[in-house]
Formats: sequence, structure tokens, C-alpha cells
Amino acid sequence: MPDTIKNISNDLKNFAIERDWEQFHTPKNLSMALIAEAAELIEHFQWLTPEESNNINGEKLKDISHEMADIFIYLLRMAEQLDINLISATREKMAINEKRFPAETNTLQNHKDKKYL
Amino acid sequence: MPDTIKNISNDLKNFAIERDWEQFHTPKNLSMALIAEAAELIEHFQWLTPEESNNINGEKLKDISHEMADIFIYLLRMAEQLDINLISATREKMAINEKRFPAETNTLQNHKDKKYL
Amino acid sequence: MPDTIKNISNDLKNFAIERDWEQFHTPKNLSMALIAEAAELIEHFQWLTPEESNNINGEKLKDISHEMADIFIYLLRMAEQLDINLISATREKMAINEKRFPAETNTLQNHKDKKYL
Amino acid sequence: MPDTIKNISNDLKNFAIERDWEQFHTPKNLSMALIAEAAELIEHFQWLTPEESNNINGEKLKDISHEMADIFIYLLRMAEQLDINLISATREKMAINEKRFPAETNTLQNHKDKKYL
Repeated sequence: MPDTIKNISNDLKNFAIERDWEQFHTPKNLSMALIAEAAELIEHFQWLTPEESNNINGEKLKDISHEMADIFIYLLRMAEQLDINLISATREKMAINEKRFPAETNTLQNHKDKKYL
Repeated sequence: MPDTIKNISNDLKNFAIERDWEQFHTPKNLSMALIAEAAELIEHFQWLTPEESNNINGEKLKDISHEMADIFIYLLRMAEQLDINLISATREKMAINEKRFPAETNTLQNHKDKKYL
Repeated sequence: MPDTIKNISNDLKNFAIERDWEQFHTPKNLSMALIAEAAELIEHFQWLTPEESNNINGEKLKDISHEMADIFIYLLRMAEQLDINLISATREKMAINEKRFPAETNTLQNHKDKKYL
Repeated sequence: MPDTIKNISNDLKNFAIERDWEQFHTPKNLSMALIAEAAELIEHFQWLTPEESNNINGEKLKDISHEMADIFIYLLRMAEQLDINLISATREKMAINEKRFPAETNTLQNHKDKKYL
């Protein structure tokens, strides 16, 4: 992983250790904390039209960026606890997606069928 | 953001463009896709004890790493669409957390009170 | 609670007992299972426009109704385990909402502000 | 559906109409609101052990019952908008589960395998 990510991950680990929070940070608990943050993100968008969700700025955009940060924080904590390299896993998954959804064929239908229209 | 992240983000953008999927990738829709992936992660842990969730390996760990990749993929897509620098936002949020939960005082209680025991 | 709900709840309890699943059905675990089902529901709608989500029928509607059933099943299981009367709790919450959002004033703004536009 | 459920559902519909909120209550949007409430429920349990989650009372239990009410409210709103009979759908899904997980065979393994240990 790039140094930036490794540094953030280490700082998060130290933050938890200094507060004696490591005991709570099992993968099970972290998966719950992560989805709770994903829901705080969704609350920002739930009553907006898709178009309105494309036009957000100022204080609202700042708040949204911090909800996204919370998701990233728990994702990195979980990667640390499970000894997963998030960047490598992402590249692996992207290669799988390339095969699963070839660019040349009928991709719109693929997309909609993922959960059918 | 470090080059690795920028490159992944660009590759994800091109992947969407080549398939004509950009039209679906509004922040509203991406927040839904992201939480759906967070739930696929949670399914791996829902019937495990916290201790069991600390001892995962082999094929299961690989599957979990790909679910985490899916979350990261949608997080980067959303950052791209909203023009948010995820790394800067994360550093900002970590600074807020440092102030909100000072290491020296009663942090266990802080943690439990977040949602009370 | 009406007999119909009580009967469903009892049948769900017996279903779990017969399979020795009660040991897994702690409120913590059930809250995870419930949100996983809520995410399966969201997957049906994530790439649809709000308008398209109003026009669903046939096999798709049947699938959606079963995802909603799964949510209800885990909600009733959790009510049982925590000895909560879901109907009374719902009436209580509706009374709170009546006070919190008076019908006569500016309710559109209230709605949007819940998470600001 | 039993009268109690029908009455609650009607009251929820009128509540939305009186505030001009029906326009926001598409199935897509309601699925987002529902999962946001499911996440508020999960926050109550995320740092607890499974055992602690079995021993909740007083004000905390009241709060949890209201989160569960919020989930039920959005579930009923969605059933109304999609013209789904939630009770019938639940009985249908329970019949499917009976066939899928026969009581007599190896159900513990079935449960764990749902998402593998």
C-alpha cells in the first residue's frame, strides 16, 4: 500500500491503542460500525432526487466528505485487523469485474439486470 | 491523493465510461450501492462470535477482502463524482476525533457511551 | 399485539428452536441480519430512477415482497428476544413524530432539513 | 392484514399526505430511509458483546424500541406504496424457509454456512 495509506492506518491503530479501544475493534464489531457510517452517508441523499445529489456544495459537501472519511477509517481498521492489503484486494476485484462485465457486450443490460428493472 | 489511489480512481472512471454506466453513478445511487456492499461484508460476520471474527483465513478471508474492495471502489467513485479528496477528508476527520476524544480522559466510557451500554 | 403478529412471532421462535438457532439470535446478531436484509431490498432499487421504483410488478414485485418479509421476520425475532411490543412502540413513536413535525407548519422544509438539501 | 396493521398503515399515509411528504415516499427513497433506521438500531449494539446485547433495559430499551418502530414505519409505508400485503408475504417467505432449511437435517451447519464460519 502507498505510504500515505500505511501512515493513516498506523495513526488509526495508535489512536485506538492510546484509548484502550483495540478490545472493541474485532472485525465483527468494525463491520457494524462501518455500515452505521454508510447509513449516515445515505441519510444525506435519501430525500434528494438523483440530480440534486449531483449538486451539493459548501457545508453540506464538507459534512458528506467527513462521513466518507468515517467509512474509510473503519475500512482501514478492518484491513489492519484482518491483515488485508486493501489496495491489492481492490486491484484483484477490478480484474474480476473486467472479466465479469466485458466492455464490448450489452453492458447497459448487465447493469440493470444486476438487480433487474 | 497518492498516485496509487488516483490511478485506481481513474481506472474506475474509465471502466464506467466504457460501459456507459456513468449515467447511473450519481452520488445518491452510489451511496445505495456502497451500503449494499457494506451489508455483504456484515453477512460474513453476523453469526460469528467476536472472537471467531478474529480468526478467519483461506478462501473466506479472500472473499472478505473482495467485499472490502467493493466498498472502497464505490467510495472512490463517490469521491470522484463529488470532487472530494478522500485522503484530505480523512485527515480532517481524524483531527476532529482527536479533539472530541482526548486520549487522557475516560476514553473507555466515551467509547461505550457513543451508544450506551 | 394482534393475534396474527403474535402467531407469526411464535412460529418464528419455534422455527429457530427446532433448528437449535436460538443461540445465534442475540439482539446484536439479529441487528446485523436485519440490516443485511434491508440491503438486499436496497439492491433492487439502487440503479432505478425514483419513478421506475414506483412501477414494479410481476416476479420482481414478488422478490421485493420476500425481502420485506425477511426484514419483518428479523424485526419480530428481535422484539421477541428483547420483550418489546412492536405495535405499542410504533404507536408511541408515531405520537412523538406528530409533536416533532406539526402538520400546520413548514413541513416541506422540515422534511428536507432532516438531511439538508 | 389485521386491522391493527391496516390502521397504522392508514395513519402513516395520512401523516405523510398532511405534510405533503408523499412526493418523497417513492420505494427507492423509502428503502434508503429504512436502512438508515436499521443502522441506528445497529449502533446500539456495535460495541456490546452478544451477551451484553441480551441484557438491556430502562431508557436504553425504550430507545431501541423506537428505532425498531422507525424500521416498521418505513416497512409499512413501502408495503403501502407497492401494494404489498406484508403479512401474506411473510407467511409465504416462512414457507420457503421451511423447505430450504428442513428441521431434521444438519441445521447448525446450514446456519453457519449461510455465511461460512
